[in-house]
This record gives sequence, C-alpha cells and structure tokens, in this order.
Amino acid sequence: MSAQLVLPNGGMFSDRAHHFAVRVQFEDTDVTGVVHHPTYLNYMERARSDALRLLKIDHRAVMEGGLGYFAIAALKVRYLRPARLDDVLTITSQIIDLRAASWVVHQRVMRDGQEMTCADITVAFLAPNGRPQRQPKAWTEAYKVMLKDPL
Amino acid sequence: MSAQLVLPNGGMFSDRAHHFAVRVQFEDTDVTGVVHHPTYLNYMERARSDALRLLKIDHRAVMEGGLGYFAIAALKVRYLRPARLDDVLTITSQIIDLRAASWVVHQRVMRDGQEMTCADITVAFLAPNGRPQRQPKAWTEAYKVMLKDPL
Amino acid sequence: MSAQLVLPNGGMFSDRAHHFAVRVQFEDTDVTGVVHHPTYLNYMERARSDALRLLKIDHRAVMEGGLGYFAIAALKVRYLRPARLDDVLTITSQIIDLRAASWVVHQRVMRDGQEMTCADITVAFLAPNGRPQRQPKAWTEAYKVMLKDPL
Amino acid sequence: MSAQLVLPNGGMFSDRAHHFAVRVQFEDTDVTGVVHHPTYLNYMERARSDALRLLKIDHRAVMEGGLGYFAIAALKVRYLRPARLDDVLTITSQIIDLRAASWVVHQRVMRDGQEMTCADITVAFLAPNGRPQRQPKAWTEAYKVMLKDPL
Repeated sequence: MSAQLVLPNGGMFSDRAHHFAVRVQFEDTDVTGVVHHPTYLNYMERARSDALRLLKIDHRAVMEGGLGYFAIAALKVRYLRPARLDDVLTITSQIIDLRAASWVVHQRVMRDGQEMTCADITVAFLAPNGRPQRQPKAWTEAYKVMLKDPL
Repeated sequence: MSAQLVLPNGGMFSDRAHHFAVRVQFEDTDVTGVVHHPTYLNYMERARSDALRLLKIDHRAVMEGGLGYFAIAALKVRYLRPARLDDVLTITSQIIDLRAASWVVHQRVMRDGQEMTCADITVAFLAPNGRPQRQPKAWTEAYKVMLKDPL
Repeated sequence: MSAQLVLPNGGMFSDRAHHFAVRVQFEDTDVTGVVHHPTYLNYMERARSDALRLLKIDHRAVMEGGLGYFAIAALKVRYLRPARLDDVLTITSQIIDLRAASWVVHQRVMRDGQEMTCADITVAFLAPNGRPQRQPKAWTEAYKVMLKDPL
Repeated sequence: MSAQLVLPNGGMFSDRAHHFAVRVQFEDTDVTGVVHHPTYLNYMERARSDALRLLKIDHRAVMEGGLGYFAIAALKVRYLRPARLDDVLTITSQIIDLRAASWVVHQRVMRDGQEMTCADITVAFLAPNGRPQRQPKAWTEAYKVMLKDPL
C-alpha cells in the first residue's frame, strides 16, 4: 500500500516555461567534490522528458511504434557555479526556436534563485532512418506552453 | 516563484521499511532496450541517501566535518525482470542486520507490485583513514524505523 | 594517418583467464574521492565484452540478428580497497561455472598485484523474448580458454 | 605476470594534435540504440586527461597538493552521426585558444575517417577557492605540442 504513496518527481508549466527539480546524488559527483560536467546534460534531459510527458507526447511509444525518435543535434553549455551533493536544483526549460523538424530549448539549472548552469539544446525529430522529419502538428501546438514569448 | 512549487522526489517510512520512487530515464538504459544492470545500484543508493536524510543523518556534513563516511563493503543482486524507459519503480529498503560499524539493507525494486530486482547491500561506516568505526548511538537508534522485525 | 596509430585497449588470455586493463577516469569517481561502487560493474562488463570479442562471439551481431542477447542474472561483489583517479587497474576474469544457457565468471580488479574488488557474475543467454536459451556449442567450447581448471 | 602485459589505451601527439582511441561500451549507449549524447563528453575528457598525462601535468597531484584544479567553463557540441556499440572511435584534440588561466580545445570524434561529433571545450584552471588562476608557464609551453598553428 505504502508504495502507492511515493511518486517520482514531476514538473509543471508556469510562466511560459517548464520547471523540474532534482537532487544531486553521489553518482552525479566526481573527485573534485562537485557535480561532473556531463551530469547536467542528464538533468536537462530528464526535464525535457518530463515536459514531453506532461504534453502527452509519449516518446517511448513513438520509438516503439517505429515513428521516429528525438536526438540531440547540437548544444551549448555555460558552467557558472558548481553544484554539490544533496543540493536541490531546479531546471527551467523554455523553447526559444520552434521549427517543423526541430526545436531549441534554453535550459537553466538554478539553486536558491542562482543560475548554476545554462544551455541551449537543439532537439531534432528523426525518422527511423535517421533523417530529420516534420513533427506532428499537435506537438508543435503543444510546445507553445513553453515557448518564449516573441518580442 | 514557480520554482518553489517543484520538488525532488522524497521517500517515506512505512511498515518498518523505507519507500522511494524513481522514473527510468534515457541515461539509465542501454542498447538492449532495458535498464543497464549497474543503474539499479544507483537507484538503491538514492533510496538509502533519502532514508538517511529523513533520519537527519547528514552524510555530506559528516564527510565535510572529517568524521568519516559510508562505503559499500559488499553486495549481492538478483535481476528478475528488466525495467524499461519511463517505468515508475519503487525501491523498498529494510535493514536486516544492524551492527556497530555496519548495516545490511535488503532493497527491492518493484514495478506495479512485481519485484524487478533485489539486493542485499552491506554499508560500512569508515573513519577518514578508511578503517571501520563505530556509528553514533543516535544513528543506530534512528535506523530502527526501517529495521526488519526480529522473529 | 596518425589516427591509425592509436587503438583502444585490448585484453588477452593467459593462465586460463582473461586479462584487461582500464585507467580510472573522472567520470568513474565520486565526491568521496574514490571510484563509485557501481563503476566496477562497468569495468567488469568491458572486460567480458573484450573476452567475447577475442573469442569471435559478436554480441552486437547476435542482438541485431535477433538471435538473443546476454543479460546479468545475478552478481555478488566484495569491495576490498578503494581505487583512485588515474589508477591503472587490471581486471582478471575466469569462468567458474559453465552451463548450457549461462555461465558464472569470477572477476578480480587488481592494482599493482593487490585485489581491490572481486565479483561473481552470472551471465545468462536469453532469447529475444527474454527466456533463457542454450548457447551455440561453438561458444561453450570457446569459453574453455578462460575456464577455471576443474579439480 | 600476464597482468603486466595488458595496459590501458594511451594516446599520442602527431600533426599538432593529440589522438586517443576508445571503444563504445554498453554503458555508453541508450535505448535508442546509439551512444547517449552526454557520453561523448566523457570520451573527450578521457582524451584531455591522457594528453595532460603525456605532458607530465599530473592533475591528481595538483588537486591533492591544494594547488587548484581544472574545470569546464563552457562547451559547444555538434552531433553529426551516431556511434554504436563496439565502434572504435578516435578523439582528436587541438588547442585553438591558449590563455593564462584557460584554454579552448577543439575535439573531434572520428570513426573510419568520418566525423561523428565535434566540440569546443573551454577548460579553466581554478584556485582551490574556485577563482581562475594563472597556469604555470611550463604548462602553457607544454600545451604548444597540440596548439593549432596560427595563420
């Protein structure tokens, strides 16, 4: 019975962005005492996966159905402050460019209101053969809840 | 403001055990399509860290204060069923042997009431020089909330 | 041209065992300053993969050909001494039980002749549906180069 | 004895660049069947660590001596083609900007002469308090073996 009472963390949409929390674990750190730099890409991926789930875009079903899959085409990261074991971090994600076959999401990792790391990540939707393909219109509509306001 | 509304997942004690949930992420899987076998050890470590946090045993402060640290001395794992991307898993942890300088915790990874993986993990408390050392009495008292009932 | 001159590390068979070396990387360590305990399972898996490759058992081709795949059924690990960044470790692997659909390999992680970690790992050969299946006779013959001498 | 005959892979300098090889392991892949995107950052870090080792810059001794440590300040990655299990990849690294307290290295991951992934990584040398600090002159001299020829 008790197992029903614990749930994995889930994010939410607010202010045209998606928000998601993680806690820094031993596996995320390295001998320098802080979070290992590739780990932030995992945090950001978890946040994107949560956003897609909330938008009812079932990546696993899409893959298993042979309809295609998302892949990272490019990314830029800036590391501003190091996070440490047990820190609670919030990942804020906002789409800053939305195209037929790809989108760019700006993701910020925050701790107590301070920006620790930020990134621009280009996510492409690929056909099973690896070629870019147009996303369903329902998806590009759904993304708009986290689309940065145009000027 | 919205950042305050999202929190990392936290576990709970119930029925003389600790319960904690995780969701399977891309980073946890491998090319065989299921969760990579060492990943379960990370899930189990996250659950143990959460239990210690709930018991007010601050592992990071203990380490930073030069008082010692926990290390894994031995483990046994049985892999029963493979978990997959997006699965929600519950880790149930129960101490089955409690000694001055170590404890053995039985951890089960469950999905919808089915056992996927289980392990017995021996956790030792070490002095900064790596030698086993006696744990504070307050800790061994605190552990009892998750100690399996003696016969 | 120079790219041809660098090669990934490869192991060898000798004394009825397989031997393989790794160097400890930042990604392998955690905030306690030593190798994170699940990392040793990755080292051991790399050693097993190298042994299979030397024996001309092409796991990737077997998987892609829909013939089945190897999965870990159970494991036991003892952690004796912690390894550190930049350490050169040798993984020695010896099959100690060989059956139609599985084998148990004893793997030792050594540094300068000292045993750091050791494990018994049960590897099962599964059909695509996840059921145990008999391995090709050529494989069980090939394994014998790393089979511990019967008494 | 046999343990002495196996060694971890080491790279080399040639043509004003450092070259290093890795083989793709199960741990590096994910459920999409290819290498997980953060894994390439680990490959690139292993190559940088090897280059520093060849240049007699002992990062571990520098850290343990309280002299400072390297940290990633920024990075950009382009993912061009996906790598797969068992692929042999060569990482070619060339410093493209060399400053007193940091350097930028262009790293390319190649397979059979094809570029799979490339990155520009900004590596900062920090004092133990996290502030940028000037690197020893011997290091900036040593780096020149992998410094891209100025126009």
